[in-house]
Amino acid sequence: MQTLQVALGERSYPIHIGPGLLGQPDLLSPYIRGRQVMLVTNETVAPLYLNKVKASLSAFQVDTAVLPDGESYKTLDTVNLIFDQLLEKRHNRTTTLIALGGGVIGDMVGFAAATYQRGVDFIQIPTTLLSQVDSSVGGKTGVNHALGKNMIGAFHQPRCVLADTATLKTLPLRELSAGIAEVIKYGLICDQSFYAWLQMHTKDLLACDDTALGYAIKRSCLAKAEVVAEDEREGGIRAILNLGHTFGHAIETHEGYGNWLHGEAVAVGMLMAVDLSIRLGWLEAQELEVLRRLLVQAKLPVVSPSDMTPDDFLKHMAVDKKVVDGTLRLVLLDAIGKAKVTSDFHHDALIATLKSI
Amino acid sequence: MQTLQVALGERSYPIHIGPGLLGQPDLLSPYIRGRQVMLVTNETVAPLYLNKVKASLSAFQVDTAVLPDGESYKTLDTVNLIFDQLLEKRHNRTTTLIALGGGVIGDMVGFAAATYQRGVDFIQIPTTLLSQVDSSVGGKTGVNHALGKNMIGAFHQPRCVLADTATLKTLPLRELSAGIAEVIKYGLICDQSFYAWLQMHTKDLLACDDTALGYAIKRSCLAKAEVVAEDEREGGIRAILNLGHTFGHAIETHEGYGNWLHGEAVAVGMLMAVDLSIRLGWLEAQELEVLRRLLVQAKLPVVSPSDMTPDDFLKHMAVDKKVVDGTLRLVLLDAIGKAKVTSDFHHDALIATLKSI
Repeated sequence: MQTLQVALGERSYPIHIGPGLLGQPDLLSPYIRGRQVMLVTNETVAPLYLNKVKASLSAFQVDTAVLPDGESYKTLDTVNLIFDQLLEKRHNRTTTLIALGGGVIGDMVGFAAATYQRGVDFIQIPTTLLSQVDSSVGGKTGVNHALGKNMIGAFHQPRCVLADTATLKTLPLRELSAGIAEVIKYGLICDQSFYAWLQMHTKDLLACDDTALGYAIKRSCLAKAEVVAEDEREGGIRAILNLGHTFGHAIETHEGYGNWLHGEAVAVGMLMAVDLSIRLGWLEAQELEVLRRLLVQAKLPVVSPSDMTPDDFLKHMAVDKKVVDGTLRLVLLDAIGKAKVTSDFHHDALIATLKSI
Repeated sequence: MQTLQVALGERSYPIHIGPGLLGQPDLLSPYIRGRQVMLVTNETVAPLYLNKVKASLSAFQVDTAVLPDGESYKTLDTVNLIFDQLLEKRHNRTTTLIALGGGVIGDMVGFAAATYQRGVDFIQIPTTLLSQVDSSVGGKTGVNHALGKNMIGAFHQPRCVLADTATLKTLPLRELSAGIAEVIKYGLICDQSFYAWLQMHTKDLLACDDTALGYAIKRSCLAKAEVVAEDEREGGIRAILNLGHTFGHAIETHEGYGNWLHGEAVAVGMLMAVDLSIRLGWLEAQELEVLRRLLVQAKLPVVSPSDMTPDDFLKHMAVDKKVVDGTLRLVLLDAIGKAKVTSDFHHDALIATLKSI
């Protein structure tokens, strides 16, 4: 087991990474302050891991909420099901919520914890690669709105995170690939040597090799933790974590949440960001092909949905959170491992990118 | 105009108090950072003041949301109507929400601001006495759940507050009285001389005398600001602000939100807290009669609902946010002007109080 500390002053917390962590009571109990625990998962994860985690919490009053599975359920209405359980079982403000599942569960349980009685503790047990490298660091929580993704939410840090690599063995291959997209992102934005490592080891990640997974998760979490520690509330530098996301969110919104996986949309979005960076003369032309090859190796899509026009993209991108007073800002690359947020690009170059990918 | 500064470090903000402040652009514009404003009010307040406030914001893109009026609409669903407007009008994270109305509007708009795109600015223009002395200080925002009042929410401080005493002239007398209940609370918990002043001037408040109102609002806000500055996130001392509220919430929940006004329920709750404090030997017996007389003068109720038994109270009080690991804590008085949070009381004394009031 490796442990990594996310440094955020009094809100600092550990991320434990390794195979077989789930069900070890000693890893959880130091982070539970009261005697009540609400364990929240979804219909897919529940039969696999719910009882195991529950058994490790025998020292507490454990109640459970099992939510429907899928991005389309990441709504205020579903969060309300968590509130229903909390109130029916009379959980008070010393309760601890535990999120057992992927990013959707983590985001919703985190938001429920941020807003139940104006804020209670929560712990993340992410069971997908995407959530282990992404939503387990940073404290972003929230839900979607019919008119935009992640538009309602709060910043709320977990008390601890357990990233059990063994849970990835039950993950559908498509979701594993989607997680690798986010791993590749960390290489692109701030870690050139990790990006080089990924060219060699993506097949090990796809084969669920525990050592390769542990290394990739740790390196990704380190990269993210560093950026987040610098900018907890996303005033500036933190926005580079959204490389590919503005394009990606447009795809997800247009196709309907859940039809394209988040990581798949981000993969195409990253390719667009690299393509645009090359058009602007900031990045060498060969990098488009390097990234494309890596994405193909990771079994990720490399072209945008056939039914989406550049206008569709522009329409959806206009409601992005990075639009400030009408000006669209994008995360682009000055080099591999060096990202920046900028509105300094020609509209024509953007259109050319949207047409070409 | 008097101005009072709530000292919360970088989240400090001013409260302007006086007649005719509404519609003065200079008081608002320094606190609006972007060019978008979402002005939120309800169906009752809109015909009275919406256009006046809107006219004072001509320098900005002003969109409006008019919500149904009443505590029964203080729900996630109603907050969602604000999100609908924000997203339809493409408000970005530099937008400012303005709450124009009573406590229900303030709580919901504050919660929408706390959670829209994970947090945007908001300004309060409270138009009831209760909201001018209570919800305008402290940063508590939130909504009710079918199983409990204010169970979902967040701490989020406004950028500024305008308390225009002239708006109280359009307030129904019953709501003015409910506001006075909260004013009386500040005297009871931390300001004995203000409590004495209220014995003399409650009739001036009921007559909407601007000088008396200005004084009472300032003194109340000062008292609350002091307590909040000491304990922004309600770890300890802040809980004394809930004098009468645990009993009061039980009444509101049992009777259905909105049938008893919040201040009316708190009035009876304060009487119970004083009664229990006397039974425990902490307060002189005559204080029950002094408070009862003051409440009657303010046209507030002094007996609990005829259909509520002590068991009804206990059932509702069990889900109160101040219950910690099964132990009920109450705000009681050691003296007039000196409150404390305690679980150090006999159950029998509590039952006797519930039976006698």
